[in-house]
Amino acid sequence: MKLKTMTMEWTGDELILIDQRKIPLVEEYVSCKSYKEVAVAIKDMVVRGAPAIGASAAFGYVLGAREMFVEDFNAFVKKVEEVKEVLANTRPTAVNLFWALNRMEDSLKKYGKTEGVLEYLEEEAMNIAKEDIEVNKAIGRYGAELLKDGDTVLTHCNAGALATVDYGTALGVIRAAVEQGKKIKVFADETRPYLQGARLTAWELMKDGIDVTLISDNMSGWSMKLGKINAVIVGADRVAANGDVANKIGTYMVAVLAKRHGIPFYVAAPTSTIDLNTKTGKDIPIEERKHTEVTHCGGRQIAPDEVKVFNPAFDVTDAELVTAIITEKGVVYPPYEENLKKLFEE
Amino acid sequence: MKLKTMTMEWTGDELILIDQRKIPLVEEYVSCKSYKEVAVAIKDMVVRGAPAIGASAAFGYVLGAREMFVEDFNAFVKKVEEVKEVLANTRPTAVNLFWALNRMEDSLKKYGKTEGVLEYLEEEAMNIAKEDIEVNKAIGRYGAELLKDGDTVLTHCNAGALATVDYGTALGVIRAAVEQGKKIKVFADETRPYLQGARLTAWELMKDGIDVTLISDNMSGWSMKLGKINAVIVGADRVAANGDVANKIGTYMVAVLAKRHGIPFYVAAPTSTIDLNTKTGKDIPIEERKHTEVTHCGGRQIAPDEVKVFNPAFDVTDAELVTAIITEKGVVYPPYEENLKKLFEE
Repeated sequence: MKLKTMTMEWTGDELILIDQRKIPLVEEYVSCKSYKEVAVAIKDMVVRGAPAIGASAAFGYVLGAREMFVEDFNAFVKKVEEVKEVLANTRPTAVNLFWALNRMEDSLKKYGKTEGVLEYLEEEAMNIAKEDIEVNKAIGRYGAELLKDGDTVLTHCNAGALATVDYGTALGVIRAAVEQGKKIKVFADETRPYLQGARLTAWELMKDGIDVTLISDNMSGWSMKLGKINAVIVGADRVAANGDVANKIGTYMVAVLAKRHGIPFYVAAPTSTIDLNTKTGKDIPIEERKHTEVTHCGGRQIAPDEVKVFNPAFDVTDAELVTAIITEKGVVYPPYEENLKKLFEE
Repeated sequence: MKLKTMTMEWTGDELILIDQRKIPLVEEYVSCKSYKEVAVAIKDMVVRGAPAIGASAAFGYVLGAREMFVEDFNAFVKKVEEVKEVLANTRPTAVNLFWALNRMEDSLKKYGKTEGVLEYLEEEAMNIAKEDIEVNKAIGRYGAELLKDGDTVLTHCNAGALATVDYGTALGVIRAAVEQGKKIKVFADETRPYLQGARLTAWELMKDGIDVTLISDNMSGWSMKLGKINAVIVGADRVAANGDVANKIGTYMVAVLAKRHGIPFYVAAPTSTIDLNTKTGKDIPIEERKHTEVTHCGGRQIAPDEVKVFNPAFDVTDAELVTAIITEKGVVYPPYEENLKKLFEE
């Protein structure tokens, strides 16, 4: 079984990831031949973006299952729990990671025997990856209806092909609108400290020939005030049952500014990102990352030694700031508590 | 006559400037022994910040007058015009530069003779520098009354000692509050693209032992939501007659976020920054700067080659978002149209 996209390649024996830390200056690939190498790649952000992390973890689970293989099914299941544990302990905020690992484990338990189990698990990981692409294309189709010919869309971070297995969520909406023949321009926040906007969003949109303008994060409000922005579309790391959205740090700021300027603020997110067990944004753990991300930029120190730093990787945008959530099952409008639940009942 | 501050030292023979391009990694000084060396230092941004540029130019004028000295007064005045010209052509946008040079020239003409003129001009430059410090200390005294013991203040860019002759405007308020014995903490926006917050504000506050935490610009809103911020204080490049405030890009964003969270948003600005001839913010031209500021960070490229960039250096914050303007003549509250005018009538 094989799969190859902009973000990842599954050769059947290894998971090859484009090194997202080095884009756009260098196009390099990291080969993961063991589940521990996959875990390191997720932790070190070779791969990032909730759906891309989920699919990578699923392939990591396959590699781990092969490494742990023993004939006795119960012993095998027990040993693979360690694989799941290691892969789950890489990033705390993105719910897709746990979702993908749970799905793999559930499949394993349901399969119930060791004969053919490795092929079965590989197929399941492949399904996760392929479904992600299908989901993104469906999000794109629904979301594209919300954009008008000539619109300029602001996006934050990278919810693009590189954040997913392929096509992207927020950028998938933009791709779909462009495929429909609409002229769409994009403003990309650079997204400090990790610069996913400057490095990844700008890179992948330029690759696809989509008109993109890079700004520093603190220019988004002024760009809105100047009338340059018609809509905001971002991705999500987790959507709570009440519609609160955890996403890359700075998303909240953009949502507040969009509200002030009467600009629609859309979240493009697969239903796997929606966690009805998380009641509100207050229940979402926010990862704090290392200080050097803020004290350094472009690999160089920019701040004094020993300066104190606050570096939350994500923030939570209140449901009331979200115009709509674009999923693969359709566009969800408020009241979210009610309408998100319906998605899972259908 | 001698003067020594964090930003500059006048030894009587030379102007020594801390090299603000190299802070915080290296503490280096540039010695200017001629007016041309001062001009180069301003042009190359060894010194920046409108009041600091103004005072530096005044000392440069003194050095130039010495170099040009001839006994005949009219011939002398004529020759010093060239000094003024060279110094004025360094940074065409900084208003204080022209203000300081015009004041020096007016003083020279008023003095009317060559006997003792060099000492007189030195004294006038010294007055400009000392008055700037006094103005900042007065702003500090008025502003400190607005801060409570235990407050954490968010600031954007560098309106500090390094932007002025000494003490600073926004950071002057913080210094004054600390001098009053209040425990004040500071959150400093790094202030992309030029990183004045990460490089200069963090450095000078740490030098003074003031508790400072560095954040990326897009973290300010989330910090407010978490209840970490009690007040915002920023400087200003120009205040219009209606209270609209032009300041470093990103200031508008911070003001909108402060409003949402019910956090007071203060502007610390000398009355020389208030321009009653500018009716509203719409009349303030906004400089767009070169794209490499955004595509690069810490001297390294962070975005794809050829990416489009929008890089406004300033933005305008609507008067309705400004809680008060702290001047050396007192704290001005809305309605600004009326109350700013009063400042100049007293």
